[in-house]
Amino acid sequence: MAQKKRKLGRGVAAVGAGLSKFGAYPKGVRATDLFVEAFNELKNSVDKGLDTKDIEALYLGDCSSDLFEHQIHVAPATVNRIGLIPMPAIRFEDACASSGVAFREGVIAIASGIYDIVLVGGAEKMTNLDTAHVTDVLGIALDPDAEFPAGETFPGIYATIATAHMAKYGTTLEDFMRIGIKNHYNGSLNPKAHFDASIQQFMKRRVASAVRKGLPEPHWANEMEFLNDPAQNPIIAWPMRLFDCSTICDGASAVLLVAEDIARNFTDKPIHVIGTGLASDYFVAEREDITSIKGTKEAAREAYGMANVGPQDIKMAEVHDCFTIAEILAMEDLGLYKPGEAVKAIREGESRLDGKLPINMDGGLKAKGHPIGASGVGMAVEIFKQMREEAGPRQVKRKDIDLGLTQNVGAHGATVVINIFERR
Amino acid sequence: MAQKKRKLGRGVAAVGAGLSKFGAYPKGVRATDLFVEAFNELKNSVDKGLDTKDIEALYLGDCSSDLFEHQIHVAPATVNRIGLIPMPAIRFEDACASSGVAFREGVIAIASGIYDIVLVGGAEKMTNLDTAHVTDVLGIALDPDAEFPAGETFPGIYATIATAHMAKYGTTLEDFMRIGIKNHYNGSLNPKAHFDASIQQFMKRRVASAVRKGLPEPHWANEMEFLNDPAQNPIIAWPMRLFDCSTICDGASAVLLVAEDIARNFTDKPIHVIGTGLASDYFVAEREDITSIKGTKEAAREAYGMANVGPQDIKMAEVHDCFTIAEILAMEDLGLYKPGEAVKAIREGESRLDGKLPINMDGGLKAKGHPIGASGVGMAVEIFKQMREEAGPRQVKRKDIDLGLTQNVGAHGATVVINIFERR
Repeated sequence: MAQKKRKLGRGVAAVGAGLSKFGAYPKGVRATDLFVEAFNELKNSVDKGLDTKDIEALYLGDCSSDLFEHQIHVAPATVNRIGLIPMPAIRFEDACASSGVAFREGVIAIASGIYDIVLVGGAEKMTNLDTAHVTDVLGIALDPDAEFPAGETFPGIYATIATAHMAKYGTTLEDFMRIGIKNHYNGSLNPKAHFDASIQQFMKRRVASAVRKGLPEPHWANEMEFLNDPAQNPIIAWPMRLFDCSTICDGASAVLLVAEDIARNFTDKPIHVIGTGLASDYFVAEREDITSIKGTKEAAREAYGMANVGPQDIKMAEVHDCFTIAEILAMEDLGLYKPGEAVKAIREGESRLDGKLPINMDGGLKAKGHPIGASGVGMAVEIFKQMREEAGPRQVKRKDIDLGLTQNVGAHGATVVINIFERR
Repeated sequence: MAQKKRKLGRGVAAVGAGLSKFGAYPKGVRATDLFVEAFNELKNSVDKGLDTKDIEALYLGDCSSDLFEHQIHVAPATVNRIGLIPMPAIRFEDACASSGVAFREGVIAIASGIYDIVLVGGAEKMTNLDTAHVTDVLGIALDPDAEFPAGETFPGIYATIATAHMAKYGTTLEDFMRIGIKNHYNGSLNPKAHFDASIQQFMKRRVASAVRKGLPEPHWANEMEFLNDPAQNPIIAWPMRLFDCSTICDGASAVLLVAEDIARNFTDKPIHVIGTGLASDYFVAEREDITSIKGTKEAAREAYGMANVGPQDIKMAEVHDCFTIAEILAMEDLGLYKPGEAVKAIREGESRLDGKLPINMDGGLKAKGHPIGASGVGMAVEIFKQMREEAGPRQVKRKDIDLGLTQNVGAHGATVVINIFERR
């Protein structure tokens, strides 16, 4: 049954997109407030204008407003906040894949014929808690029997996966860092990114600080040397160091989906959603092989099949780099590279903005930030902007970026959702 | 736009249903364990047999595993628990309407053509927390500005609504009690109900206990007198007393939905889902009129329109009696009775099992119990069993019960979801 080729009854396109600035906001700011910011950018992005009263439903990803904000039932609260009662609203939770799933379900709702115009989005306000408590909230997305009670948390889980990948394929710490360096560079070109500064800028700041304090001036010839300095890039869970980990942050994202047949009422540059895939996977303790996430492969099979494309057709991707190792897994499990070969492509710069297959153009979860419930739709926002050539200084210059995908992972891949986009 | 008549691209039918026993389970029992119990009953209910590997997705309602069980990402955990990895899974949260929404989205997914066979359900394990903490968890489904910070909790909110209804329509405490008496009677006929005992049995027990202790034997001529005794039915938030409030409990529910065109592969008695409606409403503090829930009217308009039926066609209903007053609001807002006239029907016994329009045949949230994430699909399970004449001692005897609905409310109606069922 998993092999069945799935299709949607009706075409769907994205016609608007918006993002809040990602970062750490004060306690009084709510996820709903950040959603308003994303929604405002979305409204302005709809070329031919949008009467918000025409929106028929909100599909919202939010991982744990319960624990981060001591608030539930955020979907109608968000609708109320943007003045659109009695518009129906649904909250989705699939850990870090929450809004990728909300996006998929919005596509399905339009395909079903029930709606023509659906607002999909995500929001999370994580920084009310300190890092230890955030780590606890995220940790409970793990297996309640074998993982969390055994003291596993996400840095540890991905460190285990990274170690296995190193053992099997000879992946090195420098390979992981190359991903961090690329994503920080991309983030430095993204005004919405949490770390809108590049590692170069961190280096400069550290040098300036040393000079100010009359200390010997540090000598890092390049970013790689900086990241190899344990004082600058301490170990979180070996081999994952500080610059291998995505950020705890606050943010919101929004995309407007409409039935393909009315897309031109909103814009002459719709971005079509031609495939979507969703799968579950075992918890890590139960997997046969931990150097790959089967959920990604399953979800990719569904999405590629629906879109009638293969990995060789993909021209850009936003993937779930919650840790740098996860970007490698994504590249391999999506079939963009053979197992063990993503690293070679990374070394050769293929995933850079000017490479053959740009990945995480917006800085990824690493540098753009990872307000978990917002991340999945956040990726779609970037694909939308890139395909419309509205990505500013980080715009991919190649002209053939007509097919792209987002891969959004819940936890360690117990959920994976993939959406495929086409510019026609 | 809200007036638009919506339709689904493809017919959907329920072909199996199951429920766990509702009640208070020990701490070690998880919501996922209860889901297994519901799923097992569902499997046995599929007349022509079910190969579980054919199920394509799980749509699961769960209100706050986060706060009740310190666990998130329960959808893939549930799939793992029933041995169906890599089947995709999604968790829905819309407060007490979580699984009613999961049901609707399962219907929409099949209508879209993406799936043919979808498992919808809900689960909640509330009793790990004491009543005060459960009240807090539920309270955060209220408005974060005007309601919860002002000290509002659900008994208080519904008490306010009840008082307004009394003032406007002359509704009395005895009217509320009539609903409690009916629902407890129905629950006493339902082996899955949390309160599978009737108020008559509570009375008998109290008399026996007094006799045992050598106290004067209490004299309640009937249930109404028993419930008017403040010692037996203390005030929770006037005019809502103990027997006006639904129960805090644990439970799970499951329904198997399939595309109409393959329903006969599973059973000769499919129950068709012919309409669904979903709407949001303002928080209570912002409503023009609190004797009615506009969200119910909006959702009903969508659902009736889709089903091409009107309230006059409905032959039975499962409605969201989180408090007895809520059953009155439902009867009126669904258009089954004119505003202020539900009470007359209740007095005349119309909503009893042997009445003209049976309501909450399974005991409702009042007596069957209200494990919040499980309640919406729990209502659908009852409609399924009644329409197939498999409801045992509480089976409605009338032969014309060919059209029924479920009305599932999130919080005070900030979310309302309605699903309409037909036996052909």
